[in-house]
Amino acid sequence: MKVGVVGLGSMGFGMAHSLLRAGHEVYGADLDDGALQRLRNAGGSERDIEDAANDLDALVIVVLNAAQTENVLFGQNGIADKLAKGTVVICCVTVPPDFARKMAMRCAEFKLSFLDAPISGGSGKAALGKLAIMAAGSKEAFEKAAPMLEACAETVFDLGQEAGAGSAMKAVNQMLAGTHLAAMAEAITFGMTQGISPETFLKVIPECAGTSWMLENRAPHIVAGDYTAHSAVDIWPKDLGIVLDAARAAKFSAPVTAAALQQFLAASGMGLGKEDDAAVAKVYARNSRLNLPGTHGQ
Amino acid sequence: MKVGVVGLGSMGFGMAHSLLRAGHEVYGADLDDGALQRLRNAGGSERDIEDAANDLDALVIVVLNAAQTENVLFGQNGIADKLAKGTVVICCVTVPPDFARKMAMRCAEFKLSFLDAPISGGSGKAALGKLAIMAAGSKEAFEKAAPMLEACAETVFDLGQEAGAGSAMKAVNQMLAGTHLAAMAEAITFGMTQGISPETFLKVIPECAGTSWMLENRAPHIVAGDYTAHSAVDIWPKDLGIVLDAARAAKFSAPVTAAALQQFLAASGMGLGKEDDAAVAKVYARNSRLNLPGTHGQ
Repeated sequence: MKVGVVGLGSMGFGMAHSLLRAGHEVYGADLDDGALQRLRNAGGSERDIEDAANDLDALVIVVLNAAQTENVLFGQNGIADKLAKGTVVICCVTVPPDFARKMAMRCAEFKLSFLDAPISGGSGKAALGKLAIMAAGSKEAFEKAAPMLEACAETVFDLGQEAGAGSAMKAVNQMLAGTHLAAMAEAITFGMTQGISPETFLKVIPECAGTSWMLENRAPHIVAGDYTAHSAVDIWPKDLGIVLDAARAAKFSAPVTAAALQQFLAASGMGLGKEDDAAVAKVYARNSRLNLPGTHGQ
Repeated sequence: MKVGVVGLGSMGFGMAHSLLRAGHEVYGADLDDGALQRLRNAGGSERDIEDAANDLDALVIVVLNAAQTENVLFGQNGIADKLAKGTVVICCVTVPPDFARKMAMRCAEFKLSFLDAPISGGSGKAALGKLAIMAAGSKEAFEKAAPMLEACAETVFDLGQEAGAGSAMKAVNQMLAGTHLAAMAEAITFGMTQGISPETFLKVIPECAGTSWMLENRAPHIVAGDYTAHSAVDIWPKDLGIVLDAARAAKFSAPVTAAALQQFLAASGMGLGKEDDAAVAKVYARNSRLNLPGTHGQ
């Protein structure tokens, strides 16, 4: 199949690579020419995606947010009117459920299928083609997207025929993941005030009822003092913002998530937005004058 | 060995049973005569624990809180002065770290060894002798307690020679477990406002980055609409209270934990204190007029 992949960050690049491995012809696009060149070096087509648009079977969108997604499809140089009728648009971006529904409707005007298909699993699983995908869309969209989903995902959750349900599930997942991350940062630093070292925390908690996927994934970054961004702090004001906007619209009170969001905002405000999201622990460390491993009182 | 077990609730009874299985002679005590009789039916000694106190090799305390612990040891009918010198007191109660240190000192006055040994794993693991125990105390206390720990625990974390470190670790664990439980309740009900059923939530999230031990353990109660208490709502105002008292004393700001505590207080205030702690979801459901499975708009 001929597949366009727009957005070649750590997730998009991994997915493009998985698609190549599965034998598809992959056309990349990214604001960063370096990323596009890396994909070409890995076997991506030399042909420009806009040039190839009319030949594509699928367009996978893996950009940062809703505004970029809308721009990719319907902006000044939007690709929607260049795609052949019947092409499936697979939107893997974390966006508000309402926005996904709107994109599906606008794609339908161009006779494009739309799969609301946010992803979970991080860049490691993206590279291995082992993502979890929370997908919702018409039967036709699912059928057309199937080879691409197979190449990129270990698990595809079918959340029904209405676009928006995938994004709703993703919002629920991010709500938990972000809250667990802030809770881990809060607990590992609280432990330090009680004489529990981060190393001991990481040895004990994963064996106990207090563990979470995020804790086991991110606490090692704190223990190692390594804040190289796998997933950046600034993801969370965006994603928890989506959650709390949807919650507000539904008149749903979400105090624990709201508290977690404040800690990520503080981390971003401290200038840590581009660091690994485990750096939210630095907010707690600064508030209590604790020295996290490897940070030397930063 | 001759072992006294004070407190025969779901955790204490499971531990007493594990001690019996390992071949120890077990003397029980509980405010509820029925619990004591159940232990005797299971093979516990008919002899009264006070009567046997001077013969005991170890005393395991599994009561509800610090006040009960202090009363068991040093109250009007306290057992501390009846135990033989050298007996090890194994305190499995979730108590403030400072309190554990105080108990260790007071036990030392009676020439008793003290092991600060809070437990994690729930009643299921208690019954199987597969608890995690977060232990701190002198080398002597560890040595004397070893056969009892072996009978009751799958994992014993040695947190050093100072009583208080076990309780500090337990506080960190409870901080995470309580926060994850509230986050699960918040997310499963938020999902309902977005068209995600609790059943779908439980199918998808455990495969994604948003999962936690508590979520996988407690969300099934919500999906089943079964609030039979395995661990009651009222545990959390107590345990998160211990955490936040220690945090306040250390001038440590813990906003996520504080938000979680408020939800358990609301659940308790709604009259749900004795229900399973998954009932904290009912606070969210009531606030948003959602019908949780099996609750018929309660």
